[in-house]
Amino acid sequence: MKRIKLEVAYDGTNYCGWQIQPKDITIEKVLNDNLTQLLGEEIKVIGASRTDSGVHALGNVAVFDTESRIPGERMAQALNARLPEDIIIQSSREVPPDFHPRFQDTRKTYEYKFYNAPYDNPITRRYHHFVYVPLDVEKMKEAARYFLGEHCFISMCSSRAQVTSYVREIYSCDIIQQGRYITMRVTGSGFLYNMVRLMAGTLLEVGRGKKEPEWVKEILESEERVAVGPKLPAKGLTLIGIQYENFEE
Amino acid sequence: MKRIKLEVAYDGTNYCGWQIQPKDITIEKVLNDNLTQLLGEEIKVIGASRTDSGVHALGNVAVFDTESRIPGERMAQALNARLPEDIIIQSSREVPPDFHPRFQDTRKTYEYKFYNAPYDNPITRRYHHFVYVPLDVEKMKEAARYFLGEHCFISMCSSRAQVTSYVREIYSCDIIQQGRYITMRVTGSGFLYNMVRLMAGTLLEVGRGKKEPEWVKEILESEERVAVGPKLPAKGLTLIGIQYENFEE
Repeated sequence: MKRIKLEVAYDGTNYCGWQIQPKDITIEKVLNDNLTQLLGEEIKVIGASRTDSGVHALGNVAVFDTESRIPGERMAQALNARLPEDIIIQSSREVPPDFHPRFQDTRKTYEYKFYNAPYDNPITRRYHHFVYVPLDVEKMKEAARYFLGEHCFISMCSSRAQVTSYVREIYSCDIIQQGRYITMRVTGSGFLYNMVRLMAGTLLEVGRGKKEPEWVKEILESEERVAVGPKLPAKGLTLIGIQYENFEE
Repeated sequence: MKRIKLEVAYDGTNYCGWQIQPKDITIEKVLNDNLTQLLGEEIKVIGASRTDSGVHALGNVAVFDTESRIPGERMAQALNARLPEDIIIQSSREVPPDFHPRFQDTRKTYEYKFYNAPYDNPITRRYHHFVYVPLDVEKMKEAARYFLGEHCFISMCSSRAQVTSYVREIYSCDIIQQGRYITMRVTGSGFLYNMVRLMAGTLLEVGRGKKEPEWVKEILESEERVAVGPKLPAKGLTLIGIQYENFEE
């Protein structure tokens, strides 16, 4: 028996998220089905980030255990030959049997993408949240700085989140403008349920001029479920990658 | 009776091109059907570029004649409310009744987009042609310069093209690299059938090191149907815009 680690990228548009649902097509289900067929034994992957319906990934991580003799680094190619074109295994390798993709220190990076322009571009619609009102990027940058460091993020998660602690550390939160494209790129020790989409929605309120940057500070200092910006649509969100801190690669 | 000019953008992925086909869904058909419903009279649009199946546009042009009292500049909004999300009318306005979108001097700009990296990104797949082999961008730039000016492009069009002249003028042909994304952006007086995709395929052969930049010069000077690079897939191609030279806007 060996444990294989996969780096997985997907266009989430046509999937009901990562986690297996009774009736819906999910990334986890597609991986399990294809690995089971490929290896001739029942495979169940364990995912690092159970991304929501419609969210994309350029570097999610999953592991599975197998009796197969296929070398770990060959699994990616074998699996890609079977997968639909909107899911790609970027790499595969054998890891120690106690490597668990969720119960370890990690740094995760997400991007939330805005298209800030008159509604004129159907090519951006699958991966960007469209905002017509011109955004004040400098104010968004100023607001984003309040996210940095360790905070209680209870205000920045959906109430159905069941966790023992709402404290997370944000290492960086950059607002990058390239013409009409504005990206919030955030790296942290972990993220609560819907946290990135709520952070992006909060910065959006600042960018639109409805709130001042200091509003973010007030929200975080309250350490309560206070009103924040809207949860923005899934399609603008991409899990860029996961770094395992104490895991030599 | 008045003539309305539309600027039309679309994600071509799910359409069999612009031109009406007996059984397929095309951009022209969707526009005709929706305009006919909106205005209560039978509308037939005339398109500037009859883009191929799967090709995208950020600025195609169409005109139609109508008895409607809706002001020209209001048509865009009224029509967008009915159109599917992958077709957008960017603007609409009344033009002189003799304005024909094809029989005038124009400058058209197209982009062909490559994703030059290991196969790791399912998010690029709808709008980019994936190339694994590292491309030599400097050689592609050198090769692209031979396209500039007036040439007989008989070698750069599919044989089913029926035209009286193969001479076209290319005003600019730039190769723009942004990390893994490489774009060929070309502006010309007009383009023959499949010409942009064949130009891109020819530059690709140079970028891959299979041919030297001077090859492009030889092809053009031959003024014959000589072997060129492959016709690249439609999904990498976007019609960026059409400028009407002798038409005041």
